[in-house]
Amino acid sequence: MKSIEEIVKCVSRTDGEWIKRAEARQRQLTKPPGSLGRLEEIACRLCAIQQTLKPAVAPRRMFVFVADHGVAAEGVSAFPPEVTAQMVRNFCAGGAAINALSQTARAELYVVDIGVADNIPENITVVRDKAGGLPVFISRPVRRGTRNFVRGAALTESEMLAALHVGIDLAAEAAHDSVTLIGLGEMGIGNTTSASAITSALTGLPPAHVTGRGTGADEVTFSRKIQTIERALAVNKPSALDALDVLRKVGGLEIAGLCGLCLGAAAARIGIVSDGFIATAGAALAVRLCPAVADYIFAAHLSSEPGHLALLNLIGQRPLLNLEMRLGEGTGAALALNIIDAAVAAFIEMATFNSAGVSAKT
Amino acid sequence: MKSIEEIVKCVSRTDGEWIKRAEARQRQLTKPPGSLGRLEEIACRLCAIQQTLKPAVAPRRMFVFVADHGVAAEGVSAFPPEVTAQMVRNFCAGGAAINALSQTARAELYVVDIGVADNIPENITVVRDKAGGLPVFISRPVRRGTRNFVRGAALTESEMLAALHVGIDLAAEAAHDSVTLIGLGEMGIGNTTSASAITSALTGLPPAHVTGRGTGADEVTFSRKIQTIERALAVNKPSALDALDVLRKVGGLEIAGLCGLCLGAAAARIGIVSDGFIATAGAALAVRLCPAVADYIFAAHLSSEPGHLALLNLIGQRPLLNLEMRLGEGTGAALALNIIDAAVAAFIEMATFNSAGVSAKT
Repeated sequence: MKSIEEIVKCVSRTDGEWIKRAEARQRQLTKPPGSLGRLEEIACRLCAIQQTLKPAVAPRRMFVFVADHGVAAEGVSAFPPEVTAQMVRNFCAGGAAINALSQTARAELYVVDIGVADNIPENITVVRDKAGGLPVFISRPVRRGTRNFVRGAALTESEMLAALHVGIDLAAEAAHDSVTLIGLGEMGIGNTTSASAITSALTGLPPAHVTGRGTGADEVTFSRKIQTIERALAVNKPSALDALDVLRKVGGLEIAGLCGLCLGAAAARIGIVSDGFIATAGAALAVRLCPAVADYIFAAHLSSEPGHLALLNLIGQRPLLNLEMRLGEGTGAALALNIIDAAVAAFIEMATFNSAGVSAKT
Repeated sequence: MKSIEEIVKCVSRTDGEWIKRAEARQRQLTKPPGSLGRLEEIACRLCAIQQTLKPAVAPRRMFVFVADHGVAAEGVSAFPPEVTAQMVRNFCAGGAAINALSQTARAELYVVDIGVADNIPENITVVRDKAGGLPVFISRPVRRGTRNFVRGAALTESEMLAALHVGIDLAAEAAHDSVTLIGLGEMGIGNTTSASAITSALTGLPPAHVTGRGTGADEVTFSRKIQTIERALAVNKPSALDALDVLRKVGGLEIAGLCGLCLGAAAARIGIVSDGFIATAGAALAVRLCPAVADYIFAAHLSSEPGHLALLNLIGQRPLLNLEMRLGEGTGAALALNIIDAAVAAFIEMATFNSAGVSAKT
């Protein structure tokens, strides 16, 4: 098994020459130069990631990492913790938003139990064929939820590494299956509390600036959530420059899995479509560990969670969509896959001014 | 043939009761209330348009209305006027951006010659089967381009009515074919000049505030474009409250066709997905003629053209996307169709808290 340091060494920045080649093709296509706006940027970046002028967008795979959070015991969420396991059942039965949106985006859906507190339902069989819109279910629980990080670190070093390696392993499997794009998704009651703590630790912004209402916390729960994060940071003192220190102390198992997935995907030159606040926390930790990972990330959307923009700024990515969503599960990433499809279809299929006999700009 | 007044009388506002019923279902679905943001709004509005809690999104049809503009003779565009006819050939050969994006959106594509200056290519046969990604080509030229509106009205009353009826006829055909959503697209060298003149006439904003660089006008062309619009408005004096007066004097044949298409679609309870600046000018004229049309419009995106936001405000619609596009052809509408699909898929396919056994908010 490679160490995290070894994985990081496998990630290279994308090559600006590929961007230039792709931009030169964009200028030949039958449209006013630049008129496809950010679709042009998407296609050029994917050319650089895949080192080709014919980038592929299929197959693509959405990952929903699911885990529980010890900090939920502080009463930081509008929903009770048992919802985490209930939602795994819902994903596996095809009833969640991400099931519908993955199908619309023609993406495979993988649901990964990386640390749900309840024993995961005896009645969920490990499906590994992708028919009928049902997900592939992967059971890789590192531990049954994190420790409550207001009283010390959420994870031990070895638990954190194990969770990172679940993501790294799934990226390697995706590479083996010729996956072209992966989407980041997550679910876990309490995980916006962890994402806000990570954001505050990485950016230095006070918890009150980067904490939102998650699934819909009321005023009292919201105040308690901010205070909980303040206590957690005071108790754990995570080091802003050390992503693994932040992750171990105030992170979550699903966030660690997503961080590992980003490292592994970038190492395999697979494009990463980030989602909302929690998924971007995982991606931002990967970028702090290895800045070149940012070259592989497409920021799908801007969530309503106030900390999300701070994380996007940290990784230097502008969101493609702003539809006022705050659901997670990878729903924003699934939507963005459709936009990426369109960007690549235009880039590959359009005629040039020459081939179509259309006069260029005077 | 029905008169415009008769068509207008066939359009009813959508019923707020359907919105309430749809919102009640949204609250039962396994997600935090409101967490799908604008996707929830889209699904609820489409329920009201179609008067059902199981709205359909297929088949859907993109329309690209194409026409020339006499005002192009003033030198207001970065591209020469022959590009209009060249692009019709490109659409019919499958080489334009809208060909790629319609296919990605699984939409039928109709290209309508409603007034291209050149005789439209002898070698374009009227294809009416939709295989192979090629469009249906409709030849309904009202006249071979508008008159130059700096010297008087662009169209006679009967030409304008004929162009409106091309759109009304195509909406009726779409209704007959059970089309659920139509997308508005256009192409025509010089047509941002017409759209800016319409926007200034409808909103009272000065031409300099609502005029952009179109396909990429340089500084000199851009100044000339603004002055041309100022002269056109001074010569024609269109009446802000009379949409048909504005359309006849400073409009275009493709804009008239799109206006008629919107009236006909709304009368048939078909959802309308508007596109950029020019398509929205057609939609805004329809709304000024008949305010209830606004209930049927989904504003696909915000174009880089500065007049677009003024038109969206006029019709009371917020854009779904902002990808800095300014191509027209219906490219923004095609992208938005994917978002509408996702909104409806989530609404129809998701489980409820009850059916999935997921605990609701505490």
